[in-house]
Amino acid sequence: MTRKTLLTTGALSTLLVAVAAPASAAVDPETTFVFNTLLFLVMGFLVMFMAAGFAMLESGMVRRKNTAAICLKNIALYSIAGLAFYLVGYNLMYDGVNGGFLGSFSMWNPGAGEAAYAAAIEAKDQAKIAETFGKISETGYAAASDWFFQMVFVATTASIVSGTVAERIKVWPFMIFVVFLAAIIYPIQGSWQWGGGWLAELGFSDFAGSTLVHSTGGWAALTGAIILGARRGKYKDGRVIPIQANNIPMVTLGTFILWLGWFGFNGGSQLALGSASDAIAISTIFVNTNAAAAGGVVVVMALTQLLFKKIDLTMVLNGALAGLVSITAGPDSPTIWQSALIGGVGGVLVVVFVPLLDRLKIDDVVGAISVHLVAGIWGTLAVPLTNSGASFVNQAIGIVAIGGFVVVCSTIVWLALKYTIGIRVSEEAEEAGLDQSELGLDPNPPMGQVASGTA
Amino acid sequence: MTRKTLLTTGALSTLLVAVAAPASAAVDPETTFVFNTLLFLVMGFLVMFMAAGFAMLESGMVRRKNTAAICLKNIALYSIAGLAFYLVGYNLMYDGVNGGFLGSFSMWNPGAGEAAYAAAIEAKDQAKIAETFGKISETGYAAASDWFFQMVFVATTASIVSGTVAERIKVWPFMIFVVFLAAIIYPIQGSWQWGGGWLAELGFSDFAGSTLVHSTGGWAALTGAIILGARRGKYKDGRVIPIQANNIPMVTLGTFILWLGWFGFNGGSQLALGSASDAIAISTIFVNTNAAAAGGVVVVMALTQLLFKKIDLTMVLNGALAGLVSITAGPDSPTIWQSALIGGVGGVLVVVFVPLLDRLKIDDVVGAISVHLVAGIWGTLAVPLTNSGASFVNQAIGIVAIGGFVVVCSTIVWLALKYTIGIRVSEEAEEAGLDQSELGLDPNPPMGQVASGTA
Amino acid sequence: MTRKTLLTTGALSTLLVAVAAPASAAVDPETTFVFNTLLFLVMGFLVMFMAAGFAMLESGMVRRKNTAAICLKNIALYSIAGLAFYLVGYNLMYDGVNGGFLGSFSMWNPGAGEAAYAAAIEAKDQAKIAETFGKISETGYAAASDWFFQMVFVATTASIVSGTVAERIKVWPFMIFVVFLAAIIYPIQGSWQWGGGWLAELGFSDFAGSTLVHSTGGWAALTGAIILGARRGKYKDGRVIPIQANNIPMVTLGTFILWLGWFGFNGGSQLALGSASDAIAISTIFVNTNAAAAGGVVVVMALTQLLFKKIDLTMVLNGALAGLVSITAGPDSPTIWQSALIGGVGGVLVVVFVPLLDRLKIDDVVGAISVHLVAGIWGTLAVPLTNSGASFVNQAIGIVAIGGFVVVCSTIVWLALKYTIGIRVSEEAEEAGLDQSELGLDPNPPMGQVASGTA
Repeated sequence: MTRKTLLTTGALSTLLVAVAAPASAAVDPETTFVFNTLLFLVMGFLVMFMAAGFAMLESGMVRRKNTAAICLKNIALYSIAGLAFYLVGYNLMYDGVNGGFLGSFSMWNPGAGEAAYAAAIEAKDQAKIAETFGKISETGYAAASDWFFQMVFVATTASIVSGTVAERIKVWPFMIFVVFLAAIIYPIQGSWQWGGGWLAELGFSDFAGSTLVHSTGGWAALTGAIILGARRGKYKDGRVIPIQANNIPMVTLGTFILWLGWFGFNGGSQLALGSASDAIAISTIFVNTNAAAAGGVVVVMALTQLLFKKIDLTMVLNGALAGLVSITAGPDSPTIWQSALIGGVGGVLVVVFVPLLDRLKIDDVVGAISVHLVAGIWGTLAVPLTNSGASFVNQAIGIVAIGGFVVVCSTIVWLALKYTIGIRVSEEAEEAGLDQSELGLDPNPPMGQVASGTA
Repeated sequence: MTRKTLLTTGALSTLLVAVAAPASAAVDPETTFVFNTLLFLVMGFLVMFMAAGFAMLESGMVRRKNTAAICLKNIALYSIAGLAFYLVGYNLMYDGVNGGFLGSFSMWNPGAGEAAYAAAIEAKDQAKIAETFGKISETGYAAASDWFFQMVFVATTASIVSGTVAERIKVWPFMIFVVFLAAIIYPIQGSWQWGGGWLAELGFSDFAGSTLVHSTGGWAALTGAIILGARRGKYKDGRVIPIQANNIPMVTLGTFILWLGWFGFNGGSQLALGSASDAIAISTIFVNTNAAAAGGVVVVMALTQLLFKKIDLTMVLNGALAGLVSITAGPDSPTIWQSALIGGVGGVLVVVFVPLLDRLKIDDVVGAISVHLVAGIWGTLAVPLTNSGASFVNQAIGIVAIGGFVVVCSTIVWLALKYTIGIRVSEEAEEAGLDQSELGLDPNPPMGQVASGTA
Repeated sequence: MTRKTLLTTGALSTLLVAVAAPASAAVDPETTFVFNTLLFLVMGFLVMFMAAGFAMLESGMVRRKNTAAICLKNIALYSIAGLAFYLVGYNLMYDGVNGGFLGSFSMWNPGAGEAAYAAAIEAKDQAKIAETFGKISETGYAAASDWFFQMVFVATTASIVSGTVAERIKVWPFMIFVVFLAAIIYPIQGSWQWGGGWLAELGFSDFAGSTLVHSTGGWAALTGAIILGARRGKYKDGRVIPIQANNIPMVTLGTFILWLGWFGFNGGSQLALGSASDAIAISTIFVNTNAAAAGGVVVVMALTQLLFKKIDLTMVLNGALAGLVSITAGPDSPTIWQSALIGGVGGVLVVVFVPLLDRLKIDDVVGAISVHLVAGIWGTLAVPLTNSGASFVNQAIGIVAIGGFVVVCSTIVWLALKYTIGIRVSEEAEEAGLDQSELGLDPNPPMGQVASGTA
């Protein structure tokens, strides 16, 4: 058997296709509808699983005494962000934006079209079925599949924040921040572009969210890190005290899960699978996404070897992620080697910005600011290099507008929380670990057990 | 680019569809066949991966000295349950039930239809191809894809048991129980509903198995826990000695994997993807499944904070699972907020029943009885709240009938094992840990190694 | 609801299909194109995730001091193998082999066909669209989806090597070996069969790569293990010093991820989903793949219990993998019980060969040689047992030819590396652990942290 040349294109097809051409040469609308919906569901569950990737990455990076707390934050933020996006976020982002600055404050619902279609099928009224299907086939997918796919993106945005502010933030104030992020901040800036708002009309280009998702999460994380302050003992007498990951295999697993999820993140953002063109585009996106991550890995390996005489594994893993963030704004237009290059530059940025932020005493536990914010900006700026439909000026406008908006809003929410209920655990709690202070876990459990966390 | 309005519905489609309507407006039968089969395979591999989720959850919850043993049990039970379901279970559940109480005692095979179709294609006999395809398109999917999807469900049922009886049960007797569960107990009760037996005719409603899968596993676990007895030292002088999870990130990972797998569990139970209606239904199921889990998380967070002044993370993780179990009986009919509410009640049940079972000295290592049995009953009873096709009386009949059957059968098997080969390891073995007694692992390995398990 | 009989085959379909038959009974070419592409993408992302499986399995098997180094190797090799396969490997394997011994030395590109098709769509030239689509529908899938699917296979091949040579090999020389493996060695032998070379013309049969992928990786690992030598302290005074896994749950997780990925590995190797026949074949492949792994598990459980009086869990996990490797050469033709048997024999081989290699002082850290090479040979030889299109003689020719080629090439590369930059870390570095020597991780980190790795 040769593996390249594909001879069977379907038994019946081969025999019967001649008769049916040209009409049956195209994908029929109902099949298109199923394909598009299937794309959202499959790519969506990959993105959903990124929540587990962030949880593993972050629980491996923090100190052992904070592993359970970071696990809680990750599963909680995924849950809360999803509910907030349902109650307010989705419609604020997508409903009636029309070139403006926000959508409507209302709860998401699947709309009347699908109900009418279901009623027509129930009634077996053929004319009504055709008419109602005509309406829902204008969007071309099940409304709930779209909601699901958009929801997992807002969860990703929130996940980015949790890593940066780990090991010192209180659980509940963080959750309140997540509510604002998922219900208000993310949807409003998202409406400007993906909701068809003013940035979309301007010609800003951000295919799967280098700016809309990753920089947004990164800006929120940056303001949080500054307002919250560094972990106790991280910066001492002008020196940076390195804190090693407590569980490298978990960080690696998290990175692999995120890499896997990114196929869904970028591939699903084609938003359609109902034609050969879409299938080709998604395939291109898959290989470019992979190449960008690989580029990030290889560049950081080489660079840290040259600079530090040792490969820095957590930077390599962050290099993979920075590569992925970098390609996210435009994974459909470069070639593979261009993608690897774009991702490689993302890796360089990690090597530069992780120590730089430390010098500025901005304490980012997992490197999320460098990975998601810095590489996100780079990726957005890189789009015009391979996509003639984008311009540097418009890209810069989008980056600045969204960055400004997110920084202002995040700052307000963080400060409001800080000066009301407080956002930081006490010194004793931080020293003892959040697993004990926030979750009541016993660091010295009886009966031959081990402490919470990985060990 | 706006992200909501989908303009391309396929290049050729857009141009040619007018010519082809209305015939090509529908999905052709062979495409339907491929879609349905694909649904079983993709959703099936998600459910298969739930075996890894159970393994991680359980290995994180037990004490370190029992981690390897629980890993073995999980991979072994998945293997054995699958083979048993092939040899006996599938046909007992699905072959010729016809409103009755069981199917046939025979080995599964893909049937003659597909062989005849393959032969017709081989012979390039167009009339024969059409005729034989007509027959296999009556079911509408590849027989093996259906077998695969049903098989991973029985494996889930068995996984539920392993967590409850961990840390004290012998490996081989447990495996014998799994054989009976997968070959006889699960299939017979399953035949009553999904095989088209008497409960199906009555009008019982259990979309993806709150009762058929989760309560069944839960009842088997409950009888096992009672007959096996509690772990040594768990209940002392009238007090409950808490035993902390040895590896919270693993428990979290397991929970996320199960959450991911549940999209397949519930989504695949639509059993068809070959039409816009099916695609819409599956999408609705995805968002409701997610909302129920999120509801469980949020409710348990709030409740444990209020009751215990600290968030209880393992209860939160079990809250997610209880939410998922609760929605499983009817994930297609509620709205998102109703789903979150149904899942939230499932979370409450976990908070109530985990300590309650402890007070009854029923030792459930992972909380599976509360999660799968109690929330499974709740989920089944909740169906009529949003689905007018279901009734409380019929739901109650199904719950009681299946519960009674599973309890009686499980008790017989557990007792038979107990009084023949024995089901419980010796006191010394339990003290030393099953990794040493059952698997021969050295708790103090030489050469700078660490003990088996997570450390 | 009964779960077996599927009544709805699509609302519109049910009503309208009569009008449209027989033309619309077949899958139209564009739908076929989308299905085939989707198969490559979905099955491809499953195989991609196998890289995480290998990383977890290997990081759980090595000693704690080498966990980070093995994680690095796994993410790096996946990245590097992919880039090498893009720059050289793919075209060397698939471009213009024509019954010969290799393809062309050139960089992969998606070809002119898809560009022409895209241009035609851009121009809205209907005749041109039909003409250009006709060309790309000859292969029947998006070029990049095929590249992606083939690329993840070469990464798997490289992953096999990393486990065997763990705990003593230097990072960079290993990476150079991976470049040669992915760019030259794997593609050339692969071209003989899957590229349509001389072995394909001869009639060799290797459906998804028992020989092309697994034995190739196994031969490369074997030569590496011999040339590199055993770990210090592994063989002492004529005795084999057992080294226990440091983290059994991680090994178990890795095994489950590989099992999951194997559905993609074997299922995707059908290379087409655009017809009922293909859907049936892939479904059969899924159940057989699962049965072979289950057979491996059960047989090794029973065998190690009988031989050693204790179940050997790492052998059980390797039994699952050996079962999977065994079925890979021909997952489409056996029945389920034949598959379980084929996989079971693979399990026996693990139990026999793991100690045998130790007696020969060939130090294979994870058992990859027994699993991938030995079971790969067995699986390839087993094809004629159930597939009348294959012959033992041709199978043997393929095994020997590929084995000889890979051994010679690997030996040259390993020796060249050994006598230039060296492949083995120093005694001190090996004693201290590669995490410290290669990655600079502190085994006794300050601030209450734990050492790198799992603890």
